[in-house]
Amino acid sequence: MKPNTETKIIVLGGLGEVGKNMYCLMHEDEIIIIDAGISFPEGELLGIDYVLPDYTFLKENEEKIKALIITHGHEDHIGAIPFILQAVNIPAIYAPKQAKELIAIKLQDRNIRYDNLYAYTDQDILKFKNIEVEFFRTTHSIPDSHGIYLKTPNGSVVTTGDFKFDLTPIGPMADLHKMADIGKKGVDLLISDSTNALNEGMSISESKVDNALTDIFDTYTSNRIIIATFASNIYRLKHIVETCYKHNRKICVFGRSMDNNIKISIEGGYIDHKEIIITPDEAKSLKPSEVCLLCTGSQGEPLAALSRMADGTFRQISLRPDDIVIFSSSPIPGNALSISRTINKLYLKGVKVFTNTSLSELHTSGHANQEELKLMIRLINPKYLMPFHGDYRMLKRHANLGVECGIPKENTFVLENGDILILKDHIITKSKEKVSGEDIYVDGNRVGEIGSVVLRDRKIMANDGILVVIANIDMEKRNLLIKPNITTRGFILVNENEELIKEIETTAYNIIKDKLDNTKEGINEIKSKIITDLITYIEEKTGRRPIILPVIIDIKR
Amino acid sequence: MKPNTETKIIVLGGLGEVGKNMYCLMHEDEIIIIDAGISFPEGELLGIDYVLPDYTFLKENEEKIKALIITHGHEDHIGAIPFILQAVNIPAIYAPKQAKELIAIKLQDRNIRYDNLYAYTDQDILKFKNIEVEFFRTTHSIPDSHGIYLKTPNGSVVTTGDFKFDLTPIGPMADLHKMADIGKKGVDLLISDSTNALNEGMSISESKVDNALTDIFDTYTSNRIIIATFASNIYRLKHIVETCYKHNRKICVFGRSMDNNIKISIEGGYIDHKEIIITPDEAKSLKPSEVCLLCTGSQGEPLAALSRMADGTFRQISLRPDDIVIFSSSPIPGNALSISRTINKLYLKGVKVFTNTSLSELHTSGHANQEELKLMIRLINPKYLMPFHGDYRMLKRHANLGVECGIPKENTFVLENGDILILKDHIITKSKEKVSGEDIYVDGNRVGEIGSVVLRDRKIMANDGILVVIANIDMEKRNLLIKPNITTRGFILVNENEELIKEIETTAYNIIKDKLDNTKEGINEIKSKIITDLITYIEEKTGRRPIILPVIIDIKR
Repeated sequence: MKPNTETKIIVLGGLGEVGKNMYCLMHEDEIIIIDAGISFPEGELLGIDYVLPDYTFLKENEEKIKALIITHGHEDHIGAIPFILQAVNIPAIYAPKQAKELIAIKLQDRNIRYDNLYAYTDQDILKFKNIEVEFFRTTHSIPDSHGIYLKTPNGSVVTTGDFKFDLTPIGPMADLHKMADIGKKGVDLLISDSTNALNEGMSISESKVDNALTDIFDTYTSNRIIIATFASNIYRLKHIVETCYKHNRKICVFGRSMDNNIKISIEGGYIDHKEIIITPDEAKSLKPSEVCLLCTGSQGEPLAALSRMADGTFRQISLRPDDIVIFSSSPIPGNALSISRTINKLYLKGVKVFTNTSLSELHTSGHANQEELKLMIRLINPKYLMPFHGDYRMLKRHANLGVECGIPKENTFVLENGDILILKDHIITKSKEKVSGEDIYVDGNRVGEIGSVVLRDRKIMANDGILVVIANIDMEKRNLLIKPNITTRGFILVNENEELIKEIETTAYNIIKDKLDNTKEGINEIKSKIITDLITYIEEKTGRRPIILPVIIDIKR
Repeated sequence: MKPNTETKIIVLGGLGEVGKNMYCLMHEDEIIIIDAGISFPEGELLGIDYVLPDYTFLKENEEKIKALIITHGHEDHIGAIPFILQAVNIPAIYAPKQAKELIAIKLQDRNIRYDNLYAYTDQDILKFKNIEVEFFRTTHSIPDSHGIYLKTPNGSVVTTGDFKFDLTPIGPMADLHKMADIGKKGVDLLISDSTNALNEGMSISESKVDNALTDIFDTYTSNRIIIATFASNIYRLKHIVETCYKHNRKICVFGRSMDNNIKISIEGGYIDHKEIIITPDEAKSLKPSEVCLLCTGSQGEPLAALSRMADGTFRQISLRPDDIVIFSSSPIPGNALSISRTINKLYLKGVKVFTNTSLSELHTSGHANQEELKLMIRLINPKYLMPFHGDYRMLKRHANLGVECGIPKENTFVLENGDILILKDHIITKSKEKVSGEDIYVDGNRVGEIGSVVLRDRKIMANDGILVVIANIDMEKRNLLIKPNITTRGFILVNENEELIKEIETTAYNIIKDKLDNTKEGINEIKSKIITDLITYIEEKTGRRPIILPVIIDIKR
């Protein structure tokens, strides 16, 4: 029976970016949401804590939402849940066990009561009125990662979630056989992880990292070992704990996210040997050879544990020249500078530093390289491919991989957030319509109040500072009471530039005086004039464009 | 119903070596043979053309043989068929289409009439009394390569044949879905290709070679292009022909094996554009930019077309300084020296030479690297693993890969030719018994007449030459008629060593005279004495140990 209505795939986040993954599938009066992630702000988003996917469409179609289904427990897939739950009614959330636990803690932390959070396993089938959902195990850097198989009256969609094909994983194997089974049934659309689509070949197995770590533990038996890694890489944490266990070292954990993830993973049974995890106080009585410090800061984040150790500002730990520091990580683009700064400081303290290299594989990505992406395409064997979870270059390259594997070019969709695909009787077309697919910023707990103007200002201030012009005026008499006061922050050193400040003062005075004497314009016009004239003047003199903030006080009001 | 009898897997060739693959499966009165390959002799097997697997076991159990099943058409899987058919009655041979054609030509060449050669496809199921056989498509360097799934009353066996996982192959894709299906049913034993088990990661796709070749064709549009590659790599030949077609070049083929394979592949429909294949005479009237020479000799084989071109002894083709020579190949271990000799000669002629490098991928192997071997293990998911098709190091490494993928170490079998595995109710053990698993040498058409003694002699002669001592004796009168005659070949230059030859003559004379005068010993004893005494004498004088061949003629007999 052919359906009369279309099925729509509406992408709210995760395209043109690595982060805030969220899309939904809509058929008639049913919406199933897949993932609800945040992204972390880039350097220019000053003061922003998180970025959320645009949930305007969900708000507008709230009554259709049947469920949110989570692929795995990483922030870029679950992080937006507490925020969206406060704005949109979601009748049920289904997540694999570990993700469920991570979500529950998130909700607790923000005092959000939500009673409809359920765990699924790969054996479960969720049946909605029109849409049926199955799951298959994948391998990634966190346990319990799943791909999702969605059957609609118009055809089927497979979403991989984040994955790699690790053929010797630390946890369970990806379910190749179920993927092949699904592929044999005939899949219309594959939505697949593009994070490492630019990387050739096959990614390194997590087991190799195990070997590299063990080598260091075997060699430096009398030194204290300090390991920095991603708190989100649960498998890495798991085998660091196991390596310590095998080498009779206790572990002391530093950094809140690391601490949380270790706790949840122990409770969930993903990490054993909790008896070797000790507090900093307990660690004090142990010899260097008996302890391993596991900490955040692998990206050189200034406030993370390792960076503060390197700075010598970490109260609990002072580095010693015979310490071994291992970066079990690789630089996220943009962090290279801060990491090398941290490493330099470590060297200055005489510490021996190990980083990931081709010779010593201390890190591997949780995402599929090109050969793995091709293998997924071959197993699922879809008619259409929508690369997901990546910036434009990655999506584009991933689409090309699809073409190399025999998918017609016109059947690959490199889209943007807000784009809609229409699935009708196994044929997919791109809709001319779009929904809103903007970034929503979270500053502390304030969601969406931060507009792009605020951010632009923060950015300018970060670069060139601010110059405040304060003038007291009697508007009735059109009288400037005293010479304007000039205050700056982050612009120039006032002490060394008294003359320039004086000149700015004079310029401001002349502008205001001229407006007051020769026009009938009000305060706003005067402010505009101050901004436009001063910015030109200042840029000529200094080459900088600070924010000009005129504050004109009418003393009679 | 549990069977009373065991199923045996008997390996006749392909272990501890890369070549002459053959094993068989026996259940009660049924034997199914898988492959019947030859290997090519190594340097020390002088005058030997081919090496066959030991078919003594087959000869002794001839009446049980039901069929020979071929995985693909390479020499190391089909080459022994003409020889074995002459010694052993095989009721039927099943081979994929291209292999069938290659076998038919082999039989024709040797005037062997055989009416029971059948082609199978991957859709066929062969049912014998106890054993059922299915097939799955794999990717390799020759079309129509298959893996075989054998079901017996005691359990199942999968044999991969030669394979790689080329996810963007030139021909059809490997049937991942059928492999996964078979794996889901539960496989007891996987017999898998170990050729590249020492290579990490994933092998390069044949499509990449396509790109590298196209780059050269695009760059050197006015030069004559000469390509040397393996005649057995049909896919390589296919895309060389296609590259020529796209670049408006005719192809001229040199070398018998190359010529044969091109012809068969065109007839079989594996290679198109036969109209661009021309004879050397036709090529003469064409400009360099209009022609491509495809030839054997990629391993520096002295008699192959390319080597003779490099030597300037190839009648039909003289190299010119603006010629481009492409080695679309990589050195087989042991050939590095002869290849570099050929390349040097090419350089001396001013020719531009391209070889396979990591920057320009002009060759890729047809065999699976480690990640592909692991993927096969994961898809087939066997209880037991028997690495096949490789020397000891490769087999051993492959077994370790199995262990890394979760197969218990005791369930991996690193065996030798002649070893037997016993499969009983899904449990496999290694038999204490063995069958004969020797090398059988073919010198021209003489099969098995060449023993190891002959080969040892040939080897000694190749190193140190031969020295023949001829003496005419009247044994009745115990009389040496004339001074012994000394003839040598490959030992020393007689002209420059007259004195030494004289001394040897005298020594031989003294030995014979002494035996005749002072003993009653016969001709054999005299010969022995000549050999032992002369060899010591000669080694002291020259440092060489030629073969000493005493020829004593009793003139009275």
